[in-house]
Parts: sequence; structure tokens; C-alpha cells
Amino acid sequence: MAIKALLFDVFGTLVDWRRSVAREAQAALAPLGIETDWLAFADAWRGQYQPAMDEVRAGRLPFTKLDALHRRNLDVVLDALALDGVDERTRAHLNLAWHRLDAWPDVKPGLHRLRAHFVVAPCSNGNISLMIDLARRNGFPWDAILGAELARDYKPKPIVYRAAIAAMDCAPDEVIMVAAHASDLAAAAKEGLHTAFVERPEEFGPGRAETLGSVGVDYVVPGITALADRLDA
Amino acid sequence: MAIKALLFDVFGTLVDWRRSVAREAQAALAPLGIETDWLAFADAWRGQYQPAMDEVRAGRLPFTKLDALHRRNLDVVLDALALDGVDERTRAHLNLAWHRLDAWPDVKPGLHRLRAHFVVAPCSNGNISLMIDLARRNGFPWDAILGAELARDYKPKPIVYRAAIAAMDCAPDEVIMVAAHASDLAAAAKEGLHTAFVERPEEFGPGRAETLGSVGVDYVVPGITALADRLDA
Repeated sequence: MAIKALLFDVFGTLVDWRRSVAREAQAALAPLGIETDWLAFADAWRGQYQPAMDEVRAGRLPFTKLDALHRRNLDVVLDALALDGVDERTRAHLNLAWHRLDAWPDVKPGLHRLRAHFVVAPCSNGNISLMIDLARRNGFPWDAILGAELARDYKPKPIVYRAAIAAMDCAPDEVIMVAAHASDLAAAAKEGLHTAFVERPEEFGPGRAETLGSVGVDYVVPGITALADRLDA
Repeated sequence: MAIKALLFDVFGTLVDWRRSVAREAQAALAPLGIETDWLAFADAWRGQYQPAMDEVRAGRLPFTKLDALHRRNLDVVLDALALDGVDERTRAHLNLAWHRLDAWPDVKPGLHRLRAHFVVAPCSNGNISLMIDLARRNGFPWDAILGAELARDYKPKPIVYRAAIAAMDCAPDEVIMVAAHASDLAAAAKEGLHTAFVERPEEFGPGRAETLGSVGVDYVVPGITALADRLDA
């Protein structure tokens, strides 16, 4: 197999959304006198993520960028937790918490090694501006930003993987999809891509590690530098 | 004015397509015994560029990536010059000459300086894979690849500029369009973007320098490092 390009899931696979969002929520809301379990707040916000994208996937909502879905979800979560009195300016700032996530420590060095041998791009459900901000914050050396906004639909819909590989002029079997989630890899494999599962046992908090279940993958690695090792990069 | 991002035209503005295509055409065709004026060959190929995009702009052809338009145009030019006997493999390789263009010498250092202060992205009619290859060859540090393939239409149609600034979450007046062509800058200005004209007197060969005519712009610079100087980058 001659691999030309690697596509990366981002939330969870490359960045620690849970602790980063908890930190950002505390920084934005604690000054308003709000006290809550900030990790649980992050989990509740993330809990609205798939249902919101399902509206787009099912065609009930026209394509809407993740920033806008996150904002709708934030309002839902603030209501659900009865956190009233959060002004518009604070909500708008907090919503961009997802642009200020920190990478797992292996990601920057691993991506730089991989980029010397392969085209590297995110294939994320995050919008382009969000991907730009995460890349600038964390030093991700992307060749291009592919994913939901290019395809105007959300993973794991096939069009998202197809649009990404078409943009790179690759055949499916010239590409590896890299993700910490079995459903993402199962969908990519169905489109003919190779797959690499990145173990991120801390993504959802202690004792909630994602497992592959019955999904078969080509590589299982504990991080992106380990993936570079496996690919001789 | 608070500028957040710079969008760049690529062919002519950042890369010397004429001499690069002439070099690539000679390298591909001379071994077949073909002799011709290689700069004139480049000009003839480029001469088919706007008419081909006009088919898409006018809606007579569904959106078609520039690589595919280039290939159609190459066949037209080979026919017009009565250069028969060029096999399919040679045509396919030569068509990707546009992925192997060399940058003007000021571009790489200028872009790296600008990227430290602004989001930088191409807003080109070239497709994403073409932009990836030019960036890797010439060391362009793009934050994202925007332009025709994202918008699924060709400059100077307004949607191309609008899609690029929307992807960056910018207002039009937070962005500078940088180009060596008056028509591109006039169209961007109409959408509310700031404009910078880059003088590339050699783009079309001696004595054929592009002029601004009556088009007003915010900056006129002899290259990208000079633009970085003007923007204190």
C-alpha cells in the first residue's frame, strides 16, 4: 500500500476538549458568581453535540457550522442547569471555548514528523475558522482544512470522507483516517480508507475509555508520535 | 481599520506560471522530438484559462476543478499547434505542470512574516490539491486553503470572496485581498474587502505588465515582503 495522505479527527483525537472546555467555562462563568462542576458542564455541552448534528445529517436543518450548533447547545445547557443571568457577550465568548482547546502533548511533534512524508489535513466536524484557531494555538502544520464545512454535512456521513479525499486527488486506499472513535473509523473504512485508532483513555474522563468493540482497524496507537513511528515517519 | 486576515491570488501574484509552465512543457515534450517556442506554448495554454472558467461562471458547465479545465485546455492547445502524437501518460503528467510552479523569491519570506500577525490563505481559482502542492513545493505557510473549490465557482464571482471571508469568520473590512490583477481587486473591493496590488511586471513576459487602470486600491507593492513592511509585520 502506498499511503499519500492522512486525515485526522480532531475533538478527542488531537485535542483534550473536556478539560479545556471545563477550564474555559470556569474562566467565563465563575466571575459571574456561578459555581458548578465544570467537567460535568463540559460533558453536558458535549452531550448536545451529536443530537445537534443529527438535525443536519437528517436534512431537518440546512448545513449549519459547528460554531452555530455549539451556540444553540450552550443556551440549552445553561437553561438545563438553571444558570440564568449569563449575558450575551459572555455567551458569545464562551462559545468560542472550542477554538481554545489544548492538544494532547504528542500531537504537535507527531504531525510535524508525518507531514514530512504525507499530506496531512483535519477531517473534522469543526468549521474552518475553528480548525484555523486550534492549529495556530497548538502548532498543527496542516496542508489544508478539510471536513464538514467543505462537504456541507457531518461525519460519519460518507460525503464528508469522499469530499476530503477528492480534494486531495487521492484514491481511498491512499489515505489513512486517524481517530479515537470507532464509529468514525468504521464509516471511513466503509469508504475504502485505511484506519488508525488512537487510544485516548482520558477523553471522556476516568473509566470511560472508548473501545473499538467489533470495529477492525489497520493500526492501534497510543498517540500521534507512535503513529509516526509505525509509518516510519 | 483592524485587519485580521489576508487572502492571496496565486497564479502570477505568488508564482511565476509562465516560465514554470514553459520549463515543464519543454521537459515533457522535447523528449518526444517536439520543438516549439515554450513560452508561447505557456501563453497559449494560459490563453484558454478564462474562456474555460467562463463556462462555469455562466452556468453552462457544472463546477469543474481547474485541473480538469487545464486538461481540456491542454488538448485544445496541442491540437491548435498540431502537436500530434503526445500520449495520454505525457498529457496527464504535463497537465500537473501547474502543481509544479515556482514562487517569486519574495513570497516565502513575506508570507511567513505576515502569518505571524494575520490569518493567511489563498483565494485562488486553483483547486485544493494544486494549492497543497504549490505550498509544499514553495514553503507557503497557509492557515487554510480557500477559493474556487470551496465556493464551487470561479473568481471574480462574488461568492468566491464571500465564501472565503465567511470561512474565516471575518467581516469584509477585516480582510485584504492581495493580487497582481486589477479585475480580481475590483471584484474584492466591491464585496467590501481592502485591496493590495502586487506589481509583477514579468508575469506575462516583457512589455506586458498588468496595470491598475482606473481601479483604486489600498496598497501598491512590488512584492510580499514589501507588503509585510507596509503592514508592520
